[in-house]
Amino acid sequence: MIIRKKRGNFLEDFRVGQLFRHKVGKTVTEGLFNAFTEFGMTTNPLSKNLRYAQRYGFKGLIAPPGLVMNIVFSQSVEDISENARANLEYRDMRFGAPVYVGDTIEVETTIVGVQPSSKEPDRGVVHVQTTGRNQNSEVVLALQRKVQIWKDNQEAKVEAASQAEIPTIPCDLYIPAYDKSRQYRELAHLTNPDTYFEDFTIGDTLEHSRGRTVTTAHMQWTAMLDNTSQVHSNQYMVDQNPGKYIGGQLIVYGGIPFNLCLGLSCPDVGDNAVGDVCYITGRHTGPVFVGDTVFAATEITGKRDYPGRADLGIVATILRGHKFLKKGDAWEKMEIFYLEREMAVKRRSHYA
Amino acid sequence: MIIRKKRGNFLEDFRVGQLFRHKVGKTVTEGLFNAFTEFGMTTNPLSKNLRYAQRYGFKGLIAPPGLVMNIVFSQSVEDISENARANLEYRDMRFGAPVYVGDTIEVETTIVGVQPSSKEPDRGVVHVQTTGRNQNSEVVLALQRKVQIWKDNQEAKVEAASQAEIPTIPCDLYIPAYDKSRQYRELAHLTNPDTYFEDFTIGDTLEHSRGRTVTTAHMQWTAMLDNTSQVHSNQYMVDQNPGKYIGGQLIVYGGIPFNLCLGLSCPDVGDNAVGDVCYITGRHTGPVFVGDTVFAATEITGKRDYPGRADLGIVATILRGHKFLKKGDAWEKMEIFYLEREMAVKRRSHYA
Amino acid sequence: MIIRKKRGNFLEDFRVGQLFRHKVGKTVTEGLFNAFTEFGMTTNPLSKNLRYAQRYGFKGLIAPPGLVMNIVFSQSVEDISENARANLEYRDMRFGAPVYVGDTIEVETTIVGVQPSSKEPDRGVVHVQTTGRNQNSEVVLALQRKVQIWKDNQEAKVEAASQAEIPTIPCDLYIPAYDKSRQYRELAHLTNPDTYFEDFTIGDTLEHSRGRTVTTAHMQWTAMLDNTSQVHSNQYMVDQNPGKYIGGQLIVYGGIPFNLCLGLSCPDVGDNAVGDVCYITGRHTGPVFVGDTVFAATEITGKRDYPGRADLGIVATILRGHKFLKKGDAWEKMEIFYLEREMAVKRRSHYA
Repeated sequence: MIIRKKRGNFLEDFRVGQLFRHKVGKTVTEGLFNAFTEFGMTTNPLSKNLRYAQRYGFKGLIAPPGLVMNIVFSQSVEDISENARANLEYRDMRFGAPVYVGDTIEVETTIVGVQPSSKEPDRGVVHVQTTGRNQNSEVVLALQRKVQIWKDNQEAKVEAASQAEIPTIPCDLYIPAYDKSRQYRELAHLTNPDTYFEDFTIGDTLEHSRGRTVTTAHMQWTAMLDNTSQVHSNQYMVDQNPGKYIGGQLIVYGGIPFNLCLGLSCPDVGDNAVGDVCYITGRHTGPVFVGDTVFAATEITGKRDYPGRADLGIVATILRGHKFLKKGDAWEKMEIFYLEREMAVKRRSHYA
Repeated sequence: MIIRKKRGNFLEDFRVGQLFRHKVGKTVTEGLFNAFTEFGMTTNPLSKNLRYAQRYGFKGLIAPPGLVMNIVFSQSVEDISENARANLEYRDMRFGAPVYVGDTIEVETTIVGVQPSSKEPDRGVVHVQTTGRNQNSEVVLALQRKVQIWKDNQEAKVEAASQAEIPTIPCDLYIPAYDKSRQYRELAHLTNPDTYFEDFTIGDTLEHSRGRTVTTAHMQWTAMLDNTSQVHSNQYMVDQNPGKYIGGQLIVYGGIPFNLCLGLSCPDVGDNAVGDVCYITGRHTGPVFVGDTVFAATEITGKRDYPGRADLGIVATILRGHKFLKKGDAWEKMEIFYLEREMAVKRRSHYA
Repeated sequence: MIIRKKRGNFLEDFRVGQLFRHKVGKTVTEGLFNAFTEFGMTTNPLSKNLRYAQRYGFKGLIAPPGLVMNIVFSQSVEDISENARANLEYRDMRFGAPVYVGDTIEVETTIVGVQPSSKEPDRGVVHVQTTGRNQNSEVVLALQRKVQIWKDNQEAKVEAASQAEIPTIPCDLYIPAYDKSRQYRELAHLTNPDTYFEDFTIGDTLEHSRGRTVTTAHMQWTAMLDNTSQVHSNQYMVDQNPGKYIGGQLIVYGGIPFNLCLGLSCPDVGDNAVGDVCYITGRHTGPVFVGDTVFAATEITGKRDYPGRADLGIVATILRGHKFLKKGDAWEKMEIFYLEREMAVKRRSHYA
């Protein structure tokens, strides 16, 4: 007998209340850590300089937020979005325990909403809550997302529903205590002098100067994360029916520009952060293809005290990614990424 | 004096009985481990999830079979096949001690047959037996292969011969003892529920759903393995004489689709295996080039008890790889890889 | 307010005597170690085989010279050469303490000369001295370089000056003591038999047989090193004004062919070296682009005793890299790299 194995679920397979304990799990090797921390051009020494990370009270180098997000998200792909058309929204993504090299991350997802499209009979939207934990059962990331998913069989019945209340997963950013005896100032030359809490002004938009062109390396990074969505790495599938796929070509997995935008913004807003606290909402507002050059800008939207920590403040921002499209002789700017991002940022008064 | 250094041997350099102790050796870093385990999209938690690997009695994550094969094989390339035209056959490839991060693998090869081509005066076939050992002198892999090799000098005499009997290198798969107290069932959600010994039916063919497009990243993986065969990475050499090379272009090193086919099959037949036992015979039946999308299918050809282990069974399979070639408006399937593969597979009765 | 953040300095920002303590710092992970050691096809077992490296008295695998150079150099890029047009010369590059996985490298640079171009009002040359240290404050590399840098504002005044005397940074190659009881001969099969001190003849030129084609992977390696120079990875920037950039396209970061030439030469001159001592001068004599195949050759220019070490000698060489350009039907050789290189090489009398 010939059996065509299927992987992943389709819209009609989801029910509100379902719990998926995702398969495999992922131990963070130095290979994965290096590949992801570096392709994004992250410049926060907590992820790059062991001496600095230990001085700040961490056990070792900590995974930058873009890597934590990518690991947890990707573990959910096979069950949730291997057969997705597009990821529509990230919501309430919160960071918890730091992720170190050697940690093993396992992930589970609850279905909190299922909604067939009213216009397109072949697709619909699933709303999920995903939680990643380390080997000590500490939550490292909790997030919700909405994803547009194909039906396998257009005639199949879909049970539309949404959970009345979505419980909040306890997940609070771990930050080592402030300890004057650690002599933080000795290492202040390793970060920029103009990225402390005091340096940000609400209403300013910082245009980050660097850009980075996307190559076919996106495919190996996507596989490295266990992201099995075929639209990123199966050219033959796209060639069979290009009209079905965005851009008619392989699309770059959203976690790539997500990580890249965080990294490109890092020297201007992130290298004196001790952690990202929460991404309130986020969307991929335009597709990215091989050959595109990705840029980013950060708008400062708010500042407030960090509860219980005189040495830190919370900086609220909007991180936007963009690329340029050639139209005749001109280049047109196109937004590709939008993220409402809150960071825990050191105060100069305490660190420099 | 200008000295054109040569690397690798040619057909006329080989004699039956020669022993090559290959140079350099290779310590398995987390960088190598990560790159190879991940590009193949392997899904067996023994190679991905430290908590799971340790629960099963291994010291750490174990290298998947495609990585073990690639390390040992590639160490033999400079001496045996740097000047090869094609690798014709793998034979009796058996796995032994597990390979962990930090292990150092050294390899040796004995020449067991040399046969000049009767039709083509510029080439012939060498038959070798290759053995890889770790730093404790434990065999991790033993294999034979036949490889078609160029002559350097068409006039050179070649001593045709073959060894009457090829001794068997002791090499038995290490599998930790079954131990009920380990509570394997607690982790059963990390693997697929339909890939236990009981789930396979002789005669079935499982078509694995995922495909993976090959990019120029093949060159960095080939170098990462110390595979120095120039047909995979020296474009200038090919451009000098395209007619001499298969496809008239750089060909992808066979270990890449080998590893990829193992990985693509993993969620359907390999994620509840505790190891690959033996590859009876294998061949690259078609070339792979950049841009090809690789797929795989597994035919179940036999099932039997695993000697002395009530918790395991041996599943015999044929793993085939294929790609599609565009012919006019149609796509034609082309086989690229054939492997007779036996795996040690967990029984549901004992693990789930 | 919209703030266009700038990164890097321009010609008018430099003054003789300035000290830059470079930001971030870099811990060497196994991911970085693997990627760089392997892409260059290095064959020295000190960087590949832990058993061998430990037998020779090192704590672990040691980073090959091309990786040490790349780490230290790249840490200086943001402050010194992010806005460079070209790197003109390396000078007096000396190696010190070995670099192991897990080491953290921090780097500082002193400006020793600033010279505006007499012909081109938009650029000039900066001469710097750069020193890299590990977490124990041991110098791992000291070098000088001259780099051609754009002005940001053509009207800005530049203070031309040069330091009368450039102090020598103490930096001596660490080589473990020779110890007969270590039984080096047992491992002699892991290196080539014809690359001992006794094997080299002054005046010989060794043409290394292997070549390696450069792919877009150069961009991920450049980012992995924290090299932020935009001419290597920002296609959009080049597309705005191709005439401004060498070749009118993204140029491959010089550290890539530097490392590649060292690696390609390794089996013929470097696998019995215990370290590179000094690069007296070096230049990128031609640009490298994606698709080029890089080759290398080594001229033996001198041999002398290694002070205080009867087991070693110093081999002085010129390492040249080249590629071929298609001109009509012919291929024309073009030099791309020139390096005066001295190595500490084992004597056969003591090791084989």
